[in-house]
Amino acid sequence: MKRHVYLAMKTLEEARELFFSRFGSDLRTGAEDISVEESLGRVTAAPIFAKMSAPTYHSAAMDGIAVRAEHTYGTTERNPKTLKIGEEALWINTGHALPDGFNSVIMVEKVHQVDEQHVEIRSPSYPWQHIRKVGEDIVTTQLLLPQNHLIRSYDVGALVAAGIFSLQVWQRPKVVIIPTGSELIHHGDIKTQGPVKKNQIIEYNSLILAGLVRECHGIPIIYDIVSDLEGNIKDALNNAIDSDADLVIINAGSSAGSKDYTANVIGEMGEVLVHGVAMMPGKPTILGTIKGKPVIGNPGYTVSATLSFQQFVKPLLFSLQGHKQPKGTFIKVRPSRDIPSKLGIEEFIRANIGRVGQKTVATPLPRAAGSITTLTRAEGILRIPALSEGVSQDEEIEAELLVDEEEILNTVVIIGSHDITIDIIADEVRRRGHNIRISSGNVGSLGGLMALRKGTCHIAGSHLLDTETGEYNISYIKRYLKGVKVSLFHLVMRDQGLIIAKGNPKRIEGIEDLTRDDITMINRQAGSGTRVLFDYKLEKQGIKPESIEGYDNEEFTHMAVAVDVLSGAADCGMGIFAAAKALDLDFIPLEREQYDLIIPSSMLDNPNIKVALETINTGHFRERVKALGGYDPSKSGQFWMEIG
Amino acid sequence: MKRHVYLAMKTLEEARELFFSRFGSDLRTGAEDISVEESLGRVTAAPIFAKMSAPTYHSAAMDGIAVRAEHTYGTTERNPKTLKIGEEALWINTGHALPDGFNSVIMVEKVHQVDEQHVEIRSPSYPWQHIRKVGEDIVTTQLLLPQNHLIRSYDVGALVAAGIFSLQVWQRPKVVIIPTGSELIHHGDIKTQGPVKKNQIIEYNSLILAGLVRECHGIPIIYDIVSDLEGNIKDALNNAIDSDADLVIINAGSSAGSKDYTANVIGEMGEVLVHGVAMMPGKPTILGTIKGKPVIGNPGYTVSATLSFQQFVKPLLFSLQGHKQPKGTFIKVRPSRDIPSKLGIEEFIRANIGRVGQKTVATPLPRAAGSITTLTRAEGILRIPALSEGVSQDEEIEAELLVDEEEILNTVVIIGSHDITIDIIADEVRRRGHNIRISSGNVGSLGGLMALRKGTCHIAGSHLLDTETGEYNISYIKRYLKGVKVSLFHLVMRDQGLIIAKGNPKRIEGIEDLTRDDITMINRQAGSGTRVLFDYKLEKQGIKPESIEGYDNEEFTHMAVAVDVLSGAADCGMGIFAAAKALDLDFIPLEREQYDLIIPSSMLDNPNIKVALETINTGHFRERVKALGGYDPSKSGQFWMEIG
Repeated sequence: MKRHVYLAMKTLEEARELFFSRFGSDLRTGAEDISVEESLGRVTAAPIFAKMSAPTYHSAAMDGIAVRAEHTYGTTERNPKTLKIGEEALWINTGHALPDGFNSVIMVEKVHQVDEQHVEIRSPSYPWQHIRKVGEDIVTTQLLLPQNHLIRSYDVGALVAAGIFSLQVWQRPKVVIIPTGSELIHHGDIKTQGPVKKNQIIEYNSLILAGLVRECHGIPIIYDIVSDLEGNIKDALNNAIDSDADLVIINAGSSAGSKDYTANVIGEMGEVLVHGVAMMPGKPTILGTIKGKPVIGNPGYTVSATLSFQQFVKPLLFSLQGHKQPKGTFIKVRPSRDIPSKLGIEEFIRANIGRVGQKTVATPLPRAAGSITTLTRAEGILRIPALSEGVSQDEEIEAELLVDEEEILNTVVIIGSHDITIDIIADEVRRRGHNIRISSGNVGSLGGLMALRKGTCHIAGSHLLDTETGEYNISYIKRYLKGVKVSLFHLVMRDQGLIIAKGNPKRIEGIEDLTRDDITMINRQAGSGTRVLFDYKLEKQGIKPESIEGYDNEEFTHMAVAVDVLSGAADCGMGIFAAAKALDLDFIPLEREQYDLIIPSSMLDNPNIKVALETINTGHFRERVKALGGYDPSKSGQFWMEIG
Repeated sequence: MKRHVYLAMKTLEEARELFFSRFGSDLRTGAEDISVEESLGRVTAAPIFAKMSAPTYHSAAMDGIAVRAEHTYGTTERNPKTLKIGEEALWINTGHALPDGFNSVIMVEKVHQVDEQHVEIRSPSYPWQHIRKVGEDIVTTQLLLPQNHLIRSYDVGALVAAGIFSLQVWQRPKVVIIPTGSELIHHGDIKTQGPVKKNQIIEYNSLILAGLVRECHGIPIIYDIVSDLEGNIKDALNNAIDSDADLVIINAGSSAGSKDYTANVIGEMGEVLVHGVAMMPGKPTILGTIKGKPVIGNPGYTVSATLSFQQFVKPLLFSLQGHKQPKGTFIKVRPSRDIPSKLGIEEFIRANIGRVGQKTVATPLPRAAGSITTLTRAEGILRIPALSEGVSQDEEIEAELLVDEEEILNTVVIIGSHDITIDIIADEVRRRGHNIRISSGNVGSLGGLMALRKGTCHIAGSHLLDTETGEYNISYIKRYLKGVKVSLFHLVMRDQGLIIAKGNPKRIEGIEDLTRDDITMINRQAGSGTRVLFDYKLEKQGIKPESIEGYDNEEFTHMAVAVDVLSGAADCGMGIFAAAKALDLDFIPLEREQYDLIIPSSMLDNPNIKVALETINTGHFRERVKALGGYDPSKSGQFWMEIG
């Protein structure tokens, strides 16, 4: 198997230096003439000088009468003066031109009409009183906007006021995006071919990259998918280079696999400046140039592709338009657990971030670079420098936000056992018009109690069965949350049981069948309520764990268990009915269990938590939960008890 | 003269309450179906559930070989195992489907090729190692995005990955903007009719409002200009209400003048909720409704119109789309001087803001509501509550920024005498690719020294002549900046003289003519270097100020003096040649004077100040200054001396 090798891998700083010294901050796209109506959000390519003064004539700044100031001298309360309309005074409205021979305006509130022909004033006016003079706002020839200025709404008005109806701005940079990969299909083809086949992947990196280009005010041009043939890649790249594109992104083939031709092709057609950057995700980045144009070989994994874009393409797109990249919002956070990191690699870790009490807590999401949902679910990204071996829990670290800072304050962090109805809460809260994010972490019921203890969540979701008393949660809370006063609210009653393949091909009847040789199960992780329940069931039936094939394989969510059954990776697993139903699997009910929300009593005043609890209490929420199947929401939102 | 009256004026809070209780946060535009390609920046109108799992099949997460984990058990460094390609192992690339019957992947780096047919491994693998399982990222039926979620680039990718190729979003709100006013002309008509005539004003408020609507992700629809006839206004409003617009802005006619029909018309056609808001600028705002649609009568003055928009239209446009208005950036600033404010009126004061040393200083700009440049020049807006009589100097107050927060740190504040070349510095700095704002305040030379003393600027511009020594600036600095170590740099030598009308119709020969009865002058303000020079010239010739008509009329800039001469408001005034030349006026030179930049020595390390000084030293800057005329830039940027 032929494999390519990375050129000497560069640190992120070295790579940026190599790239941006070649495509420097003084490099621009061409200038173009546009009309002022199109100028919002564009950047001036030349200084703009006023062609007209504003106002263009002396005008009244108030409604009232125009007078000659000299006529009014000596007027007082005791010595009022009568002026003849049409001769000594003229009615005038705001904005109207000062009539010739007049030099002052008296506001209407100070004018007393005597009759149709006469008015009386009781104080003098001074020359140029209440008059907007020619050029008071803008003077012909003055510098209105400097070069490289981003035009805002106000600027558009100033341009017109200054007689500028068209102007030179930098062209928006055009970015060609070339998706490569023989396994890729365009999503539009799904309609004609039907469901995705094995070894097909729907291409969507180009859409994300196009979105990022638009967010940088560039114009994305997405090429058709190119298969992994060196010749095809060359052809596409040639077309892109010979087009009017300012920058080319080729995605992917940037790694060192046998089909990764990108670096070779760029090297043959031009020059590879960097192949391999010591960052994660994003290592297989290629930075190169062909015929003077920047060419970026972007990694194939979605998260890698976006992070590579942020580091190399984004700054260039802004500077090409004469503008500096906005700095982004950074806040200090504390990780909810230790985050180890590899020395020598700059790591970017997506995290859920929420404000819990006085702490802003960051919980790392899975590092899988192919998981787009780790980006959509993340509120921010932690950056761990190359020279660090990681961050320890409660060490303060900076996070770059992916959401508005305000959203962090409006995030309700629910950690603990996984339940599908938490998604319903998240949606219902927003449907009702609240700008609240529900951020949920699946670490099992016990993990939720631990998070509550550490102060890293607002709410713990738990369904821990005390096998001695038959009661849920209470004894665990008393043991693990000693000294913390918490309130328990019912979320749902739900059916737990065995999730099995559709039609039950292996004729599984109950837990006793799991010891059969032809049956492989998938388990839930230790510390999850489902695991507690499962182990209790085994014990009651006198079944030894080691007699069950697959007992040691663990998943973290009901849905993951159901997926394993659906895909045939396992024959069955314990989980909730709703998960089986969602994937159209069969289900053997074993228990109706109680799932509660546990909230520190001190947090019950938090308005966002109040909204979450109110939401659970609505009929709309109950109906949606009922529709899932396997749930009894009749006690949803009810306060149960306070402990501690 | 018939005048309308405001209905009972409302406080800003009352007005917002009345308006937003009628058009509440649960009011939305209609939903529309769009393709996923168009979804960036839109807001979901319904929760979005995954239609496909991702990955759609088990696939290799690494390049390497697919194996059966059971085959590899017991392998160690000492007991390596040879696998036959095609039977026990299959080459596999990242992303490719796991072949049937295989359940583990060993990465290529750990595989040693023996020959074409065999590979050797030296450690065991476990089931599902380096495999991306079906649904690992997204599981069919899971909630992908909640309702009222703003779609970002990443979300677009997640949508496609989950098999969502079209979706329901809230329509962008359509906003009809009706410009009214018989004096208004469309800027497009200037081309055909020639220069603006008396009593004509180029209409540009609609373009600013349209820009603001776009910034709120709405769609502006600008109607033709409507003259001030009640019938015409009614017709336009009828058309707008019967269109598919979600909101109508009528601008203006919202005041209480005789031609201000807007409130009447809205009242007749629907209901006026508020007429008159206790805010400044923005008082003549009308909030109403016709056939259930919100109608806003926006004030005519540009600044008033934009502030009224920010308070009432902006929040509504966001909530109509199911999204909350971004909060904006607020920072703490200290005013550079006392700011009085009227009790009972909420005041919004535009200000120049810059970071000087450890203080963030805000210098209020003129309050004129018709001055668009007070908005384009401002870095932020200070809000003075209705119950306050103002803010005193050095009292900390919040400012809402109109520029990026970073720009505040990159603002060089130059206060003092007005000179046209400061605009050239501002432009040259940006032309050279620096993201530096030059914020200049014209308060005269002495005012600049005072600002330096108070620490409210980085650089003072000064040309104060010591009439006893004939030297510039030094003695003033010694007197007014005692104890502050400052460095002096030359900016320019420049010609001062009398600015007179083109062709010199009044035959002015020199300063002695100013005592003539038929001559009115315009003066500069006390404390300005030009005033010092002028008074010196008068004294030398034995002319008494009281013998000069207009001596007490003051302007603050050379350009304002030139404009007064151009418009005939004065026959002459003292100023620099460049101002006369810019407006094509005649000029009688009286003195070549020295204009310096004075900088606290402690600030010379500031990188932005360094850039400004470097810029002045370039040939490009000197050439541009020379081209203005009346300047000698040969010593520009030279260090002169340190004092203190």
